[in-house]
Amino acid sequence: MKAEILATGEEIRTGAVIDSNSAHIARALEQEGLTVVRHLCVGDDLALLAATLSEIGARAEVAVVTGGLGPTTDDLSAAAAARAAGVATALDPEALAAVQRFLCALNIPLSPSQQKQALLPEGAGWLPNPVGSAPGFQLAIGRCRFFFLPGVPREMRRMLADQVLPRVRALLPATRERHLTRTFSAFGDTEAAIGDRLAHLPEKFPGVRLGLRAHFPEIQVKLYLGGSAAAGLDQRLAAAASWVRQRLGPVVFSEAGEAMETVVGRLLLARKATLAVAESCTGGLVSHWLTNVPGSSGYFLFGGVTYANSAKSGVLGVGLQTLARVGAVHEETVREMARGARRVAGATYGLATSGIAGPDGGTPEKPVGTVCIGLAGPQGADAFRFRFDSGRRLANKTLFAMRALDLLRRELLKAAA
Amino acid sequence: MKAEILATGEEIRTGAVIDSNSAHIARALEQEGLTVVRHLCVGDDLALLAATLSEIGARAEVAVVTGGLGPTTDDLSAAAAARAAGVATALDPEALAAVQRFLCALNIPLSPSQQKQALLPEGAGWLPNPVGSAPGFQLAIGRCRFFFLPGVPREMRRMLADQVLPRVRALLPATRERHLTRTFSAFGDTEAAIGDRLAHLPEKFPGVRLGLRAHFPEIQVKLYLGGSAAAGLDQRLAAAASWVRQRLGPVVFSEAGEAMETVVGRLLLARKATLAVAESCTGGLVSHWLTNVPGSSGYFLFGGVTYANSAKSGVLGVGLQTLARVGAVHEETVREMARGARRVAGATYGLATSGIAGPDGGTPEKPVGTVCIGLAGPQGADAFRFRFDSGRRLANKTLFAMRALDLLRRELLKAAA
Repeated sequence: MKAEILATGEEIRTGAVIDSNSAHIARALEQEGLTVVRHLCVGDDLALLAATLSEIGARAEVAVVTGGLGPTTDDLSAAAAARAAGVATALDPEALAAVQRFLCALNIPLSPSQQKQALLPEGAGWLPNPVGSAPGFQLAIGRCRFFFLPGVPREMRRMLADQVLPRVRALLPATRERHLTRTFSAFGDTEAAIGDRLAHLPEKFPGVRLGLRAHFPEIQVKLYLGGSAAAGLDQRLAAAASWVRQRLGPVVFSEAGEAMETVVGRLLLARKATLAVAESCTGGLVSHWLTNVPGSSGYFLFGGVTYANSAKSGVLGVGLQTLARVGAVHEETVREMARGARRVAGATYGLATSGIAGPDGGTPEKPVGTVCIGLAGPQGADAFRFRFDSGRRLANKTLFAMRALDLLRRELLKAAA
Repeated sequence: MKAEILATGEEIRTGAVIDSNSAHIARALEQEGLTVVRHLCVGDDLALLAATLSEIGARAEVAVVTGGLGPTTDDLSAAAAARAAGVATALDPEALAAVQRFLCALNIPLSPSQQKQALLPEGAGWLPNPVGSAPGFQLAIGRCRFFFLPGVPREMRRMLADQVLPRVRALLPATRERHLTRTFSAFGDTEAAIGDRLAHLPEKFPGVRLGLRAHFPEIQVKLYLGGSAAAGLDQRLAAAASWVRQRLGPVVFSEAGEAMETVVGRLLLARKATLAVAESCTGGLVSHWLTNVPGSSGYFLFGGVTYANSAKSGVLGVGLQTLARVGAVHEETVREMARGARRVAGATYGLATSGIAGPDGGTPEKPVGTVCIGLAGPQGADAFRFRFDSGRRLANKTLFAMRALDLLRRELLKAAA
């Protein structure tokens, strides 16, 4: 069953406000098994609104329209709907009573403009709004059932759930379609490389659709499968998911939409391990992420942002000779930083970063984008060097911090095995 | 001149992602004097995409399309544009060279799927993407000039500013209206309080429109003035800006859209001062922000994320008796933390935070949202207590960190006077 979503209003048309309603409605309709074909937005222009409603009425079976139900002259939804349906508007007694009740509770008198909110197209069905003054309504235009809701997100959400979705369900055939999705969060490979590794998915799992999306610094891998409820959809999607899991291996760090730091925190807790971090180029970002997780004080003990070499030696005990011999960005240095952080805090693991986030500070041997990561644990300390230059300082910090946490994650997975 | 905006992609169609690109593009086009008539969104469906492009091509004079330019099989924009324009696609040598250059800097080999990104409709003009791999392009379909941009907001914004808007300006008649804006970034007062202080702006400066927008954690105060080029617009807006500056005083921290940490960094440099930070509740966020600024190594010496009390005493020298007597969240503790950070790093200033970001850990005397901030400098150490609970851990950390930097900023302003 095809659905369309129309957002109305000058604020959205001109970009003063980002339309979050349409995404919310799309998710809800797709979850019910409808296919949202189009979103549209037009401003407060009666002729254009009426024409757009007529177009949608010729194409879709269900439509949800937001905005334009209020008391002011730029609220045109009822007039536009009436014009598109070829009917007049009339005061709806139920809607009027509801507007009166709502205003009365707020001690606001019923003005002519407030009364206008109860002017609905003839033949429309009033939809109560329990959390605002503007009533909604439903109306058939062409072959499509339209639901008109307020633009205020809180009112729209409540009315969508209470009034629209139950009516949409009743319109669906008993054998209605279901739409299933699975999401894998991946890090450590490019979008293209992941796409190549999963290139055979369509032939191996007919009907399962693959979507890849760069959600910097992660790649999100999505599987979509739709069909009738009787077709064993869950098993088919589970089989595809299992294949994806096996093809991508440890590149996938979550199947529940979690952040990397949440996954790392859970692994630390499970191993009763604690962590201390020493950051140079990432400048506090690793610590910031880790401490975004509620309860992180249970495993995160200390982070040292040791930008100056004097802090690297003074706080972490990195040898001044090491710094003089190999410099701040080097495997040896980050190994000592990781050991130092671990020792200072008495933690199970120490994780350290040192690199060149840019835009300045690069050299021919150590260009911008170079990062060394050290990891110290009960079995000793290790160090790694990578290079990824995104061209932006913050993006480089983000990539460096993500890579550091990912190294710790993979180490913790090994520690469990 | 009529414009339309098309967002493409399954994530937006299904509501998994809220489309913020279209609002950004609408604002920019309206500011140039175009009228954005419609926003549309469709998914990754070649036939529907091509049909939608043809429809827009028959209605509008300028269109901006986002998404569908990446390397994977669900990236269909070039193919759909070619179909709508009635041409084939071909490898664009300039686009291919740009993709190669971008991948080379990241040490990624050019795979067939990466190469696909340089397949453009015949007759299209390549638009360079300086911050990502997917090139954009421009193409005439029907009577409309189309600009195809990546869906990644950062890449889209850069290309809109650099590639699209100059070309759109060239299409406009010379006698067009000018639309001027000024933006003030404010922190330390609510949106309502700022609105009250500026309530007389419309009468004092007729034609100047005021816009307040919460851009968490800042408030952005915008002045808009439009009119014909000959009307002395600049002087009128400058007079209004000067009045706003005087009304708001130190609440305004930037008139150039800078981040708080950029302003603080500039003040530190100007005073030849250095900084060390000790963070508990902000968990590294203050250090992360400070080190986002290129050249911050010139004044930022050390940040200690001392989550555990043992780190507060071990690394910063906070007295164990102090911690036992008043606890971690207290003016005395943050004063000692600030002094300790300053001493450990040998910095001019020490800045410290300790508080309760939540969701757990609150008590009746120190509820979630309580934060103490310590500031040590050449004249001694001071401490402050605030409470702002946004109900979300990350938002609380953000408010705490912003307040800490703002205190330092106001101290540095005094130090100059």
